[in-house]
Amino acid sequence: MALVVQKYGGSSVADAEGIKRVAKRIVATRQAGNQVVVVVSAMGDTTDELLDLANQVTPAPPGRELDMLLTSGERISMALLAMAIATLGMEARSFTGSQAGVITDEVHGFARIIDVTPGRISSAIKDGAIPIVAGFQGVSQTTKDITTLGRGGSDTTAVALAAALSADVCEIYTDVDGVFTEDPRLVAGARRIPRISYEEMLEMAACGAKVLIPRCVEYARRYGLPIHVRSSFSDKTGTWVSENAENESEEAGMEQAIISAVAHDRSEAKITVVGVPDRVGTAARIFGIIAEADINIDMIVQNVSAIATGRTDISFTLPGADGQRALEMLRSAQETLGFQELLYDDRIGKVSVIGAGMRSHPGVSAKFFAALAEAGVNIQMITTSEIRISVVVDQSDVDVAVHTTHKSFGLDADEIEAVVYGGTGR
Amino acid sequence: MALVVQKYGGSSVADAEGIKRVAKRIVATRQAGNQVVVVVSAMGDTTDELLDLANQVTPAPPGRELDMLLTSGERISMALLAMAIATLGMEARSFTGSQAGVITDEVHGFARIIDVTPGRISSAIKDGAIPIVAGFQGVSQTTKDITTLGRGGSDTTAVALAAALSADVCEIYTDVDGVFTEDPRLVAGARRIPRISYEEMLEMAACGAKVLIPRCVEYARRYGLPIHVRSSFSDKTGTWVSENAENESEEAGMEQAIISAVAHDRSEAKITVVGVPDRVGTAARIFGIIAEADINIDMIVQNVSAIATGRTDISFTLPGADGQRALEMLRSAQETLGFQELLYDDRIGKVSVIGAGMRSHPGVSAKFFAALAEAGVNIQMITTSEIRISVVVDQSDVDVAVHTTHKSFGLDADEIEAVVYGGTGR
Repeated sequence: MALVVQKYGGSSVADAEGIKRVAKRIVATRQAGNQVVVVVSAMGDTTDELLDLANQVTPAPPGRELDMLLTSGERISMALLAMAIATLGMEARSFTGSQAGVITDEVHGFARIIDVTPGRISSAIKDGAIPIVAGFQGVSQTTKDITTLGRGGSDTTAVALAAALSADVCEIYTDVDGVFTEDPRLVAGARRIPRISYEEMLEMAACGAKVLIPRCVEYARRYGLPIHVRSSFSDKTGTWVSENAENESEEAGMEQAIISAVAHDRSEAKITVVGVPDRVGTAARIFGIIAEADINIDMIVQNVSAIATGRTDISFTLPGADGQRALEMLRSAQETLGFQELLYDDRIGKVSVIGAGMRSHPGVSAKFFAALAEAGVNIQMITTSEIRISVVVDQSDVDVAVHTTHKSFGLDADEIEAVVYGGTGR
Repeated sequence: MALVVQKYGGSSVADAEGIKRVAKRIVATRQAGNQVVVVVSAMGDTTDELLDLANQVTPAPPGRELDMLLTSGERISMALLAMAIATLGMEARSFTGSQAGVITDEVHGFARIIDVTPGRISSAIKDGAIPIVAGFQGVSQTTKDITTLGRGGSDTTAVALAAALSADVCEIYTDVDGVFTEDPRLVAGARRIPRISYEEMLEMAACGAKVLIPRCVEYARRYGLPIHVRSSFSDKTGTWVSENAENESEEAGMEQAIISAVAHDRSEAKITVVGVPDRVGTAARIFGIIAEADINIDMIVQNVSAIATGRTDISFTLPGADGQRALEMLRSAQETLGFQELLYDDRIGKVSVIGAGMRSHPGVSAKFFAALAEAGVNIQMITTSEIRISVVVDQSDVDVAVHTTHKSFGLDADEIEAVVYGGTGR
């Protein structure tokens, strides 16, 4: 008997109909001979409505109280889901993050899971009941206050709980049939990826693919827990995320693609620090200032120094939302850093190709850049990892760059595979 | 420095404006040199909205899950209230019933408080923060599941917490200026009662006055905790409920009224079991059947037996909502009980006069009945306690009975005292 942890997002339980549909799926999984533990997010727009209430009361809600407020969202959805399952004749018991043993640090709004002690979940399973656990929330180890895990927190709850319970698989339900070679909303010919490795999934998430957040994939990798990303609106197999996916492909005889996916991100901005003295420690000082402001840097490029001037340029990308703040921090340190000028551009886009196959296949970057050149796309920055190549281009070039690249690596499907279920009953 | 526990009901925190208004009052109480602990109900119609959601999912929600669902209501209001207080520059910390140490039995929907262990509340007070506690909810001692306390549960939370913290007073905020000699919505000349004993308050609650529920008053009496019932819409003194109120009247020189209040109740029905064999144990059998169905009996009257027949009639009142169920139970036991006929009347009303003064003043009942007779009101049943006289009359006579009685005992105010704040900002 397999132990399956299933996670349903807010769009799957947006209303009473959605909740009943999900309840049927859970009961079916159970009747197929599996033990099931469910993690659920708040219904549809609940979180936004609660945030709106908070804003009516104060412009700056304290983190502790905001977490207390927001966690009522999952409390509602999980209780309703448990009721819906009971109506189908099976016992379900809902548990808050705290009751489920999701222990975190005390950082409200962005808490990290320290430990999971799912004693009550195990007892419920033993009693033959289906545990329904609130996603996105936990309890601080030190203060015993309620915390939330931040964006994508319910996925993290599901994976962490699955790891603690030694589950056989963590199923992440969404509104598309899995992970695709590109966002099917942008590239109609995007192809479902049947299997993908943790590493590739991590790179995709870091490059703007919105299916799974990096911390959740990281957690699964650490515990060797397979994730199955699939749609709550269909019964199709989705995408399996696991170790060394390329060696285990079920699609026997299918040639392993060199590139697994193309990803893009329009949310970043680029800062160039012009005329930095080419001395030891300059970069450390620049990025020390940015780190102090808790801003995440993505790509960094430093050009070789022009010998005549002894100065160099350093460019980096960061979330567009943090752009102005970073500029101010750097400007106020201009004297210390000794740079000549700051350039800012938030009309950029990042396009990446990801694939474990590129380890053993040389020439991927050449093919990538050639495709872009042919489409007339100018490359502003380049960075690479072992299994990823990313370029920064003008934002208006992102669409054509994505389509060209997707096609040139043979990822386009022969027929449309992706269905986005946004319209059905939500 | 006094420790004040304040309880605000759903109508006081119905929207963001209400929450801000209540926050100001809490901060003002603190600035006046008191320590404050707040108990708060769910906002306005939240509970009804959640029940509606549950009904959309299932016609018969399990109690455990219904409690999990409903308790999200206070979670929302308490977090928002804590935020509003923070905006006024004071630290507030919200606590669920479980976090506040409200330990109950495991009866979902009607849990009883077994113990209160407010360690975290005391710590918050020591830290200089204002604790905001969710009313209406607790955690089961045995199952560790979340429970709710049933109707009026937030008042009970407030009193229980105040007792556990040895508070100086428990302030119950409502939308009128205290407890009145009758419902000001019915009798415009109703007078605010400045002080009333626990016993009188208990009798009033049992007789249909809706200000405080009996269990809350009972709890306060057991711990000798003074309750101050007052309006959250004004700064006026309300009604103090405490021990031996009649001896402590602050209104020096004011003659102690014999009768403190008139109360009425239109929600009951009357069943008469006609022609019961006048034998030992008959009444026990009848009410045993009713008790088995968990139906609360109010008044019971047994007429003397007609010697010729050896049979008697037993009449009793009960909540109108339970009437049909009680009738069915009795009918199905007609052979065992041996009665001749069942009469049912849900067009009745109960009118009561309450006052500790009647202990030392004979003739109260004579005066009461004379007033009713003068007004042409026919009395169907009578019961008395040491400090209360109740009569059952035809429902159409309730209004005139109440007005006549209120006037005849000299309770009418010289001018209108009561303001119902229903219109202001709710």
